[in-house]
Amino acid sequence: MLKINRLSLDEARTLIAGARTKAVEIGVPMCIAVADESGNLVAFERMDGGKVTSVFIAQDKAFTAAGAKRTTESYGLASQPGQPAYGISSAIGGRLVVVAGGIPVIIDGEVVGAIGLSSGTPAQDTECAQAGIDSFLGSFHSS
Amino acid sequence: MLKINRLSLDEARTLIAGARTKAVEIGVPMCIAVADESGNLVAFERMDGGKVTSVFIAQDKAFTAAGAKRTTESYGLASQPGQPAYGISSAIGGRLVVVAGGIPVIIDGEVVGAIGLSSGTPAQDTECAQAGIDSFLGSFHSS
Amino acid sequence: MLKINRLSLDEARTLIAGARTKAVEIGVPMCIAVADESGNLVAFERMDGGKVTSVFIAQDKAFTAAGAKRTTESYGLASQPGQPAYGISSAIGGRLVVVAGGIPVIIDGEVVGAIGLSSGTPAQDTECAQAGIDSFLGSFHSS
Amino acid sequence: MLKINRLSLDEARTLIAGARTKAVEIGVPMCIAVADESGNLVAFERMDGGKVTSVFIAQDKAFTAAGAKRTTESYGLASQPGQPAYGISSAIGGRLVVVAGGIPVIIDGEVVGAIGLSSGTPAQDTECAQAGIDSFLGSFHSS
Repeated sequence: MLKINRLSLDEARTLIAGARTKAVEIGVPMCIAVADESGNLVAFERMDGGKVTSVFIAQDKAFTAAGAKRTTESYGLASQPGQPAYGISSAIGGRLVVVAGGIPVIIDGEVVGAIGLSSGTPAQDTECAQAGIDSFLGSFHSS
Repeated sequence: MLKINRLSLDEARTLIAGARTKAVEIGVPMCIAVADESGNLVAFERMDGGKVTSVFIAQDKAFTAAGAKRTTESYGLASQPGQPAYGISSAIGGRLVVVAGGIPVIIDGEVVGAIGLSSGTPAQDTECAQAGIDSFLGSFHSS
Repeated sequence: MLKINRLSLDEARTLIAGARTKAVEIGVPMCIAVADESGNLVAFERMDGGKVTSVFIAQDKAFTAAGAKRTTESYGLASQPGQPAYGISSAIGGRLVVVAGGIPVIIDGEVVGAIGLSSGTPAQDTECAQAGIDSFLGSFHSS
Repeated sequence: MLKINRLSLDEARTLIAGARTKAVEIGVPMCIAVADESGNLVAFERMDGGKVTSVFIAQDKAFTAAGAKRTTESYGLASQPGQPAYGISSAIGGRLVVVAGGIPVIIDGEVVGAIGLSSGTPAQDTECAQAGIDSFLGSFHSS
């Protein structure tokens, strides 16, 4: 029998809160999604002013990062013309996102979930996603 | 120009918290979604143990209740065999849900959003959705 | 070579205007769609206050009535449990609508397009759809 | 409670009329869609001869420009190979369009809706979309 480690709702909230704090700091209202290790949504918040299109993209970034166990940014590099994963962005009905902003949450080498952000530039989305993870890992390792 | 009232993220959290409190009380881990008046997701939480299928159904209940300005339960009645809305449950790619658990949030006669729950029986989903609305309306009118 | 008769945009506007006049009269803000004989959208209007879910359903009613050359209401009867078209409502990804409110526009026995309404009860949707057709046929035959 | 400004149907018609006038001037029959600030369709017209594929693309351009609060043309630049949003064109089931011709309608710094055109070259689509916005803003600010 497999024993799976999975983010709890409380942990998902910690991830979102960390990302939101950074989003407020840089002044970009974000859509923030947290998926579990199976890619299924655990929690989501659209900050007031977050983009409608990002409601979907943030969720799909979290889905992609959890399901593929890698950052969506790494897929962006791997799917450039001529690269091995070229064309992967339209997989799974377009749910596989290759734009930066989705990052897996890794504990002891194991993916336990992922966070995905959208509404800013991909660099801003990534910065806030990483802030969420840093905040979570800080609270996790001190607990 | 039309002037629209829309739930804020803080208000969506109040709705979710009210529904969650009731869900804890009845012992059913729920998926809880809040959509704005246009049907787009504002916030979502899957309580630990909430169902994977309900991740989608809760969101679609909130979408339906907001977009159609009525409870999903009322659609269940109206879409029984021989009734006027028979067959409506497969509309919009199946996103239109006719199972109880989605309720619009109405302020001064205007739909400003909706809450949708899934993971329990439709009656339990409805009970928790209504608890969320009651909690929100209580805080709203006293503010 | 086939010679096809197809509603023009001007004729679609006449259909919409006729339906809208009736909608105003009965006090229900409607989503009104007109498709051509191939089921493709020619014109659409969402009256202020029309439902978001109806944006999709009105279009699909027009698509169904044009493509299947029959009223969506007739499909509702034919798709009841035990009837020959039972289950047809989920065809074409759910775009085939079996709820009343979609009516083909027929000239000399030939379907040249269709009108679909949504936001009221199916009876109200049908009443307004028929008003649009009556208005169009009146102007067409007198021209 | 958030206070949102949204295009009315009358305003959507003004946008379409302005775009159509330009389309007639340059001799290209267009599909013209107007979405509200949440990306939901308000009005649509396919000029006689407009392309069937454009029925969908025009709507999705309006959806994208409203939902993402930016021109679809800007996404075209940002999603070139090697650019940050590379691969975004398949997001949301392909509804996110990165081809020019979708422009948000902005009043006092706030996106209140968007217009999307398709059937010409992207440059022609953009020219007509902008003509619709210019016509609307002229009538809006003089009213």
